Amino acid sequence: MKKYLGRSIKYLNDKTLIKAAEYSTKGGKYMRPLITVIAARSVGGRLKDALNAAASLELLHNTSLIHDDIMDGSSMRRGRLSLHRKWGKNVAITVGDANYALAFYNLSRNKNPNAMRVVQELSKYTMRICAGQLMDLRSSKNGSMRNYKKTILLKTAKGFEVATKIGAIIGGGDKAHVRMLAEYGKNLGMAFQIKDDILDIAGSEKKVGKSLMNDIREGKKTLPLIYALKKSGRKKELKRLLKQETIGEKEAREIIDIVRGCGAVEYAYRAAEKYVQKAVDSIGNLPGSVEKQLLVRLAGYAVSRGK
Amino acid sequence: MKKYLGRSIKYLNDKTLIKAAEYSTKGGKYMRPLITVIAARSVGGRLKDALNAAASLELLHNTSLIHDDIMDGSSMRRGRLSLHRKWGKNVAITVGDANYALAFYNLSRNKNPNAMRVVQELSKYTMRICAGQLMDLRSSKNGSMRNYKKTILLKTAKGFEVATKIGAIIGGGDKAHVRMLAEYGKNLGMAFQIKDDILDIAGSEKKVGKSLMNDIREGKKTLPLIYALKKSGRKKELKRLLKQETIGEKEAREIIDIVRGCGAVEYAYRAAEKYVQKAVDSIGNLPGSVEKQLLVRLAGYAVSRGK
Repeated sequence: MKKYLGRSIKYLNDKTLIKAAEYSTKGGKYMRPLITVIAARSVGGRLKDALNAAASLELLHNTSLIHDDIMDGSSMRRGRLSLHRKWGKNVAITVGDANYALAFYNLSRNKNPNAMRVVQELSKYTMRICAGQLMDLRSSKNGSMRNYKKTILLKTAKGFEVATKIGAIIGGGDKAHVRMLAEYGKNLGMAFQIKDDILDIAGSEKKVGKSLMNDIREGKKTLPLIYALKKSGRKKELKRLLKQETIGEKEAREIIDIVRGCGAVEYAYRAAEKYVQKAVDSIGNLPGSVEKQLLVRLAGYAVSRGK
Repeated sequence: MKKYLGRSIKYLNDKTLIKAAEYSTKGGKYMRPLITVIAARSVGGRLKDALNAAASLELLHNTSLIHDDIMDGSSMRRGRLSLHRKWGKNVAITVGDANYALAFYNLSRNKNPNAMRVVQELSKYTMRICAGQLMDLRSSKNGSMRNYKKTILLKTAKGFEVATKIGAIIGGGDKAHVRMLAEYGKNLGMAFQIKDDILDIAGSEKKVGKSLMNDIREGKKTLPLIYALKKSGRKKELKRLLKQETIGEKEAREIIDIVRGCGAVEYAYRAAEKYVQKAVDSIGNLPGSVEKQLLVRLAGYAVSRGK
């Protein structure tokens, strides 16, 4: 995947663009392109076509991260300086735009008759992401469970859904296959995001490779936190701690104690497991194959992973 | 065209996105989409397909203006507040991104077998624009005639070239048609930009609808100015005037006197006329049609227009 992506990026045909685009691809987990490829193979698609669609998805994903970081003023991304911090805002806007174009250019070179349907899915998905971005900019998050599900659906699960969906499409799957694999992707994404939330409060810093409670410090309403605010009986205390200008070591430990102490982590695990089960169930009728087995194991891994 | 574009924009499916995208389409001259449609018709293409490709080009063009205005910090665009001034930077970045996606989504709905080739041309063109943008950000303009031609080729002529090229492609033109119409578009764009430069110093404020010397005030090296710096014999005086913090009425009149007095406007007209001739020559072998006649007249209009 990395090799294929690296080759695509060369089409940008400008030193700075190429360097910055390469920078932006580094450090990702490549989860989305990975499931695109497996989904395509699970319905008998060709590897080359699958890699092509997967690379385009990853390029679009990278752009949305680059532009998001500008909008949020984030300095760090995947453990390194964000692009706009390293090269300046103007280069970052431009590299994002070039990546968008490259994603579609890349697909236009794919001779597979279903490539245009992938153009359609990816462009539709991008428009939705943009609409979601504006919702984000407009509304403050209200911290309800319903709002949480809606947010992670838009932010993560829809990305996983489109990943498996375009895999199924470019792989030549029929309508039922496309529907099953899209459903699988969506539920996998939900589980994946909840596990991310769990790692943020209950992970091992060493394994995760970054300090805990990053999301909570940024004011994100993660699932364990939402649960703790509702069920721990220590809502006031928790709210006071979260409101601190900077959350130091001491406050962090107190928050962790409250959240872990009330069973919020276990609750979140149960929620994630439900989505894993849904994901596995949705591909129940997919013909048996090595790839199908891989998808089943991947769903388990989404929750069992240590980072 | 406006109607078609308006319908496309509805696919953005978010109130703010739609409002802002509509705002960004207003006040344009629609030159590019117009020549896309005429080019498509000149090779026998269907109007519906042509409008579809033309709308995508205009959407991409609008995005590059929106993002450019953010990068340059421009407050005004087409006589109105620029998008980022009206809605803020974050909304402007997002609307630009959504417009990009919409341009390709729009094409993906076109059943014409050549639609994917249009995806390819437009995405390639967008990558080039991005590369050009970075060149802009990196290098200060050196004011040579060669640099001038290179700059307007990238900034304007390539946009006109891709406009007629995609028209020819979606219209089902053969290789020779595509080449001829692309060549026509490029030369039309060169003439068009030089005429814009001329209007900036020698237009009628009333007709142009904006104050003169906007480009020169912004430090742009327009063709008449480059000529005057070389040939007027008053280089020092001109340079001093251009360096003023703000160029007032008095300085503006002096600059106009120097530039107009040395024959720079006539020189620029001759240069523009050469491109008009080249444009007309390049479609010499195109089969006769109403649209071919229109293209010939349009080339003349590029230089004769008063605004």
